[in-house]
Amino acid sequence: MEMFTVMRRQKVAELLEREFQGFQVDSETIPIEEARGRVLSEAIVATENIPPFRRSTVDGYAVCSQDTIGCSETLPAILTIVGETRMGEGTDLSVDAGEAVYVPTGGIVPVGADSICMIEYTEDFQDEVGIQRPMSQLENLVDIGDDVALGDCVLEKGTRIGTQHIGALAALGVHLVPVYHRIRVAIISTGDELVAPGQPVELGQIRDSNTDSLRAMAEALGCEITLVSRIEDEFDAIQQTLEKAVSISDVVMISGGSSVGNHDMTPDIINSLGEPGVLVHGIAIKPGKPTMVAKVRNKAVFGLPGHPASCFIAYKAIVEPFILRDLQGVTKKEFPIMAVSDFQIHVSSGRDVFYMVELRETNKGWLAAPIHGKSGMVTLLSKADGYIEIPMEKEGLQKGEPVAVYRF
Amino acid sequence: MEMFTVMRRQKVAELLEREFQGFQVDSETIPIEEARGRVLSEAIVATENIPPFRRSTVDGYAVCSQDTIGCSETLPAILTIVGETRMGEGTDLSVDAGEAVYVPTGGIVPVGADSICMIEYTEDFQDEVGIQRPMSQLENLVDIGDDVALGDCVLEKGTRIGTQHIGALAALGVHLVPVYHRIRVAIISTGDELVAPGQPVELGQIRDSNTDSLRAMAEALGCEITLVSRIEDEFDAIQQTLEKAVSISDVVMISGGSSVGNHDMTPDIINSLGEPGVLVHGIAIKPGKPTMVAKVRNKAVFGLPGHPASCFIAYKAIVEPFILRDLQGVTKKEFPIMAVSDFQIHVSSGRDVFYMVELRETNKGWLAAPIHGKSGMVTLLSKADGYIEIPMEKEGLQKGEPVAVYRF
Repeated sequence: MEMFTVMRRQKVAELLEREFQGFQVDSETIPIEEARGRVLSEAIVATENIPPFRRSTVDGYAVCSQDTIGCSETLPAILTIVGETRMGEGTDLSVDAGEAVYVPTGGIVPVGADSICMIEYTEDFQDEVGIQRPMSQLENLVDIGDDVALGDCVLEKGTRIGTQHIGALAALGVHLVPVYHRIRVAIISTGDELVAPGQPVELGQIRDSNTDSLRAMAEALGCEITLVSRIEDEFDAIQQTLEKAVSISDVVMISGGSSVGNHDMTPDIINSLGEPGVLVHGIAIKPGKPTMVAKVRNKAVFGLPGHPASCFIAYKAIVEPFILRDLQGVTKKEFPIMAVSDFQIHVSSGRDVFYMVELRETNKGWLAAPIHGKSGMVTLLSKADGYIEIPMEKEGLQKGEPVAVYRF
Repeated sequence: MEMFTVMRRQKVAELLEREFQGFQVDSETIPIEEARGRVLSEAIVATENIPPFRRSTVDGYAVCSQDTIGCSETLPAILTIVGETRMGEGTDLSVDAGEAVYVPTGGIVPVGADSICMIEYTEDFQDEVGIQRPMSQLENLVDIGDDVALGDCVLEKGTRIGTQHIGALAALGVHLVPVYHRIRVAIISTGDELVAPGQPVELGQIRDSNTDSLRAMAEALGCEITLVSRIEDEFDAIQQTLEKAVSISDVVMISGGSSVGNHDMTPDIINSLGEPGVLVHGIAIKPGKPTMVAKVRNKAVFGLPGHPASCFIAYKAIVEPFILRDLQGVTKKEFPIMAVSDFQIHVSSGRDVFYMVELRETNKGWLAAPIHGKSGMVTLLSKADGYIEIPMEKEGLQKGEPVAVYRF
């Protein structure tokens, strides 16, 4: 009783890329304090050299290395101290042959000097200093632009800003960061049986967990939630809510109502809002097969399965990559944890299968183990450390086989 | 000219654990919408069964499996349809021998029935239905409490709430979540040479990146930032700011001023605020050696090195574990990426060495490669995918050796 034909995940990704190629997400400039988790809408190009001056990496004397050839503790090179530089201050001093200038760690190396002798290897004689070690050129200093040179591309457009990037941006003086607007996401859950958190559950009803789950995942991606709605399976109510959601959002996720059953109105409702409407109904993933992909008034609408496990995986497999890659140009690869399978499963569903796993540490690396005990969604989500994918071609997984584990 | 003795990182961790054993972080109850990234202050124990009723996993007829023994497509078991259940509604129906009740996916399985025959394997004859396949007990249904049973501990105290846990909490009806108060963190950067983002840089000055970097990392941990201050190296100014910081925070991070140089006032200032003051000055990590650990008025004060790379690593190695483990009881292990080293280094510093790396994918798994090009902090932070640790005992790393890569 297959009422829709399934499409491979790769094909769905290609279709989404094609359909939303021209989709314009506006840029904005935000303070660095708010930039974590957002996506760069422009490359960050250095507008200054770092360091901007020749900087000492030690406390010591800036000297000309030529003056120190052959010197030693017993036969120090005696140089005239012509001054000192101070942290955070400029200097007019220069170092000529036979001269030395005291420089603190981080201080400017005066013109003429090509190395800094650590204070530990010097001896002070009032106006003179004895250098006890021969210095080599550029020793104990960082040259202008050594870290980043003016004009270097430091972070590419499409970079998702992580905590580590904040320090780089700050050091470059980028206190206003060009990013894409938060992707506006609406979340609609449909189903006569759904009960909102905090409400009493009557017989036959189920607590809605998809709404909170999708919201948390979208917020973790940096999205702005425009609308959250739980509604009964009623054509008009869903249509009105969906219409509003599409008008104020870039992406709409509607969960429930997309399996083939009595109440399967979602595709009709989506199609009623405009062309082209539903593009895909059924994706070759397990769980998550009854997922829909639609385009309405140039917005993306995803019909996600009502079952929490299916909804979760469909979001991860289809929606999340769309929001990052297609809408914001994020190209950076993911970093799954490479593990070894601790179990064997046979699958021949003709679909890419997703499987929640626990990670165990061994002296040979990570072991991916199935979640023990009962296998409901709450148990899975509370115990799993990540999930694996078994592509449909593989038809299963052997014990001892390497497997990539994706973290949540 | 070693002016402080270094302590091993493990010893520092033990000392922190001991000193702050009795530290009380208050709990609060927050809406599930705000719970992501926070730490559970109580275990989550199921107060209801999930599912709370015997639930069908297919659209079909609830039957007694006994009635279907030996039936087939050509010889269906003919049962009397005594009603149907509806999604989200209770039911008074029961199924006796010879009877069947229609049940949608997710619907209640009536008392008496022990299995659901999928609609695909049935044939309707007005008031009767032909079952074309023999059913086994509990087929196509989820029993009461199969996912979670009343009283089960679903999430342990000290769990850091990830996106995946939100769905589990919602399904359990936990819309108000018991968590520790946000850890209150103050960030002070000292140094005459520091320039705030957005301000012009004069010769000899450096942009302060530690403040933004530490703030981003602390916020990513779920901390509340109580105070951010950039001040010159002046005893009274630092003392006043530190005093205020300690009074309104759980953790104070003060960066700069902790290397042994001209302006090394930080330990004295910390000690001037009260007993026991500085507990550790110098940790056997590289970079990050001049890190200080102090306790003042029962608050933790960390003196972090001014150099951005050292500050970053000292935070990661010392402060972050303290905030998670010692203050909030987070016990969950980290999940480094197991990779193979693509390079060889020799270190014999007598310290645990941290090294930034890039991850490259190969058909045998991840390769950890050093960051190419110039090695300043901006380059490192913008290019690295994570960092590795080489414990002091190891004295280096061989090419081809397995290595754990910690993501930022």
